[in-house]
Amino acid sequence: MQLSGIIAYPITPFSDDGKKIQFDILGQTLEHLLDHGCDAIAPLGSTGESAYLSLEEWQQIAEYTVKTVNQRVPVIVGIGELTTRQAILKAKFAESIGADAIMVIPVSYWKLTDEEIFNYFEEIATSTSLPVMAYNNPATSGIDMSPELLVRMFENITNVTMVKESSGDIQRMHRLHELSGGGLPFYNGSNPLALEALCAGASGWCTAAPNLLGGLPKTLYQLITSEQLSAARAIFYQQLPLLRQMVIAGIPKVVKAGLAIQGIHAGSPRKPLHHTTTEEALSLREMLAEVNR
Amino acid sequence: MQLSGIIAYPITPFSDDGKKIQFDILGQTLEHLLDHGCDAIAPLGSTGESAYLSLEEWQQIAEYTVKTVNQRVPVIVGIGELTTRQAILKAKFAESIGADAIMVIPVSYWKLTDEEIFNYFEEIATSTSLPVMAYNNPATSGIDMSPELLVRMFENITNVTMVKESSGDIQRMHRLHELSGGGLPFYNGSNPLALEALCAGASGWCTAAPNLLGGLPKTLYQLITSEQLSAARAIFYQQLPLLRQMVIAGIPKVVKAGLAIQGIHAGSPRKPLHHTTTEEALSLREMLAEVNR
Amino acid sequence: MQLSGIIAYPITPFSDDGKKIQFDILGQTLEHLLDHGCDAIAPLGSTGESAYLSLEEWQQIAEYTVKTVNQRVPVIVGIGELTTRQAILKAKFAESIGADAIMVIPVSYWKLTDEEIFNYFEEIATSTSLPVMAYNNPATSGIDMSPELLVRMFENITNVTMVKESSGDIQRMHRLHELSGGGLPFYNGSNPLALEALCAGASGWCTAAPNLLGGLPKTLYQLITSEQLSAARAIFYQQLPLLRQMVIAGIPKVVKAGLAIQGIHAGSPRKPLHHTTTEEALSLREMLAEVNR
Amino acid sequence: MQLSGIIAYPITPFSDDGKKIQFDILGQTLEHLLDHGCDAIAPLGSTGESAYLSLEEWQQIAEYTVKTVNQRVPVIVGIGELTTRQAILKAKFAESIGADAIMVIPVSYWKLTDEEIFNYFEEIATSTSLPVMAYNNPATSGIDMSPELLVRMFENITNVTMVKESSGDIQRMHRLHELSGGGLPFYNGSNPLALEALCAGASGWCTAAPNLLGGLPKTLYQLITSEQLSAARAIFYQQLPLLRQMVIAGIPKVVKAGLAIQGIHAGSPRKPLHHTTTEEALSLREMLAEVNR
Repeated sequence: MQLSGIIAYPITPFSDDGKKIQFDILGQTLEHLLDHGCDAIAPLGSTGESAYLSLEEWQQIAEYTVKTVNQRVPVIVGIGELTTRQAILKAKFAESIGADAIMVIPVSYWKLTDEEIFNYFEEIATSTSLPVMAYNNPATSGIDMSPELLVRMFENITNVTMVKESSGDIQRMHRLHELSGGGLPFYNGSNPLALEALCAGASGWCTAAPNLLGGLPKTLYQLITSEQLSAARAIFYQQLPLLRQMVIAGIPKVVKAGLAIQGIHAGSPRKPLHHTTTEEALSLREMLAEVNR
Repeated sequence: MQLSGIIAYPITPFSDDGKKIQFDILGQTLEHLLDHGCDAIAPLGSTGESAYLSLEEWQQIAEYTVKTVNQRVPVIVGIGELTTRQAILKAKFAESIGADAIMVIPVSYWKLTDEEIFNYFEEIATSTSLPVMAYNNPATSGIDMSPELLVRMFENITNVTMVKESSGDIQRMHRLHELSGGGLPFYNGSNPLALEALCAGASGWCTAAPNLLGGLPKTLYQLITSEQLSAARAIFYQQLPLLRQMVIAGIPKVVKAGLAIQGIHAGSPRKPLHHTTTEEALSLREMLAEVNR
Repeated sequence: MQLSGIIAYPITPFSDDGKKIQFDILGQTLEHLLDHGCDAIAPLGSTGESAYLSLEEWQQIAEYTVKTVNQRVPVIVGIGELTTRQAILKAKFAESIGADAIMVIPVSYWKLTDEEIFNYFEEIATSTSLPVMAYNNPATSGIDMSPELLVRMFENITNVTMVKESSGDIQRMHRLHELSGGGLPFYNGSNPLALEALCAGASGWCTAAPNLLGGLPKTLYQLITSEQLSAARAIFYQQLPLLRQMVIAGIPKVVKAGLAIQGIHAGSPRKPLHHTTTEEALSLREMLAEVNR
Repeated sequence: MQLSGIIAYPITPFSDDGKKIQFDILGQTLEHLLDHGCDAIAPLGSTGESAYLSLEEWQQIAEYTVKTVNQRVPVIVGIGELTTRQAILKAKFAESIGADAIMVIPVSYWKLTDEEIFNYFEEIATSTSLPVMAYNNPATSGIDMSPELLVRMFENITNVTMVKESSGDIQRMHRLHELSGGGLPFYNGSNPLALEALCAGASGWCTAAPNLLGGLPKTLYQLITSEQLSAARAIFYQQLPLLRQMVIAGIPKVVKAGLAIQGIHAGSPRKPLHHTTTEEALSLREMLAEVNR
């Protein structure tokens, strides 16, 4: 599996009372992402509010997404579980429905040692034949995997073949490159770092931005691969206010509010998360008008 | 409800394969805690690996504990859920089985605003007539509630009547005291801060330490209330190496290893958590021998 | 040298244009500190704006203080220098004028390794026969000395005999106590930690608070040594708003503004430091009225 | 003044006993920097151990550097003082000897408010007609100036015309670009961020690296300006181990050790700083061999 470019995150649309998933809206947003040139679809990540779903809902979304994408691009299913057992259960399910890869993030209540994290990945990877993207996001998961640990897993666990780095620290990407002699493909998951991560050699950008920005993220990626640096810089700064806002307010909140502005009603994030405040929504409206000017 | 003294945390004993709960061992540890003068029992907290249990297991343990304690002391059931709906479900269950209070910690995947946290507590508190202890533990939950927010909830949500502070920052306790004019009872949840928290006016100490230290924590509490400061200091320093080790290695890991040393086999923490390393176990054996000398 | 109780910091009073030292006002504040039972005087610390003085000014103040105090209590002269050579120069001067001890803080531009810090103290201590108090204050100096390093210096450098801990972390004091088997006298330099530090076994409290609070800090110390914990707690909470304000706004700024309110005109801190804003001054006036009610 | 490219830092060579400055070696390193295409020379920065020099030494080095460079490229003299008065004294001196600009970093003992920092820069800038580069380096100075403050000074203080950002946080550079509408030239001072800072639009790279790496930093700069991104990335990764080591062990230590390996004896950094350990020196030798292979 040689993955590169834009790996796009769909949201999970809910009904107004927050109880039901609106699959028709999900389908609509998937087509939107594919229409704008996204190179892979990654359902059930942070953007998809995976942590707030029941197991049954998680399975329905995984299955619906694989069917809808229908091999037009790879589907990488997100798994983030506190217990190894539950993570394995989901990994097996993902394989059974025809997903192309899984993206796995360990989650912390009690802090995990490096050995515990290694074994977590080892047991999950062994339970499936799918490629595994190890996903580091200390801000959401409470666990910070060092480049040293990530490269050790890449070198010692057969199907751990990719890393997604969302810490926002460019030096981590430098280390992944150095420690693996350039052999470990890494993907950027920190939106406001998109320009620099690609300049530093990231294979792709995992992002929910195409939900609101259409083809702009893909264009940034293409400008970098064709070494048009000034143009890439300009199109990055064009997107940056929105990319930063997604970090500040939280991605599901911002994407759902932005979709509503564009006429797509995907409900609110699940409680205790609120939808955006009126002030945030107004500011978002301006940002979207500005970026699409 | 006027709670003071030692609020003790039982562990959740598992079978060797980690799949089943050993209720007989749970019962044994509950009696041990009561025998050593604990003033309340708080099942399903961080110590009880609550985050790693299925809903069904959580319910069984809550019910078993209430029955076993049988009103000898109050039972305060721990609730830590990502979604408001799931937290309410557990609050109602706790009330239905005769628990005396609930201890509620908000959990983060996406960061919560103060308004979101306030509403989370408001909805849960409204769903039950039980008193609610608001529990702050940024290291495990990823959410840090300021003293200002905690006092605002105490003053505006009828049955939020107590706070447990586990940040380990004594200045938070000072602020709780000041902002509430001494009116909000707060309890210390950071083991190595036990001496100072009680000196600063904490109503009690929420701790798993009596599982391994028997009556020593209660003695510390009594020495403080009787203003025997030198004696309190001495008995605190006696316990401190073990209290610190519980922070460093994680409470369930240390308590289960310590119980095993004392002949009580409560299994390992759930995967991906490991049991203690051999080195840690040897060091723990020495600490326990030292403290009980 | 057996030091205990309140080690008081005088400010450095300047003329209105900031250029000259007002020795008469300095003398007045020294008498005020002695009148209120302070057990030692520590000129040229953080409070004394030592870092902002020329060498000549530093020498004049040291000499004036030793003469004025005139052996009524010990005088501990503060030394904080980037280069070892300059620190030695000051240590020799302090000894030459009859100071009783020196309080030494290493200062960082480039970070220092533990070996570099150890040698810094070793060379200074060797240059003088005075006892040395090692002073840790990462917030002002940019260097954080671990309890392990501090105890190693205490055990291996003959006249390093005391530690002042201003990190505000009570766990550091626990470690100093444990690592030295209770043999290393430590002093608290974090004002809002005064109650807990003394409860945990600190030998004294290094503070500028008596400049504004008169005998209250000494009373807190005495209540702790006589094990009157409730009374100690009450008198601590009485002082706390002012103690915290000294941390927030900076000690020289707050003390000079407070003295002005009390009719003693000691000028402003040296530029770029400003005097307090009008708003801060008003709030300070209220705090002082409240604490002295 | 339109400054771009490589702004190079000379070290301050000392005699073996650390007491005297070796001006002949200084001259030799200045010629080395100019030979390798450096676009400006910045004496008396962090690299030059400015903080560890007497005023007289500082003045001698400033004067020697201006004379030696002799208008071949601009000379930007570093000023970092705790008091405004001393900083002004140095600014006037720099102008009097014919320096082209000054680079000013505020230094903290007591924390400074934004107003205090603004006034510090305002008074210094008013005292001279030289352009001022505002220099942010929280790790060495203890003061962290926000992009908002830096842009406010750029817009309101006539001769504050440039910013050097050494925090290592690429998002700060994004903000400087956005807040000033691209109008404020910023320069990168964090060596391991060189590639990304230039990609994000930095006007130059302030660095001591040419002392050891000769023309490689300049080549990186030129590859970026000519949009040869793959080649730039390759040459950046070639330099990175050494750039990182300068951060880890401290620049003067690493540069002086590296020069010694190359046969130039510039002494050790001033005490309490040590020279590199034998282990560090061996590792440095390997890095230098590798990068020049």
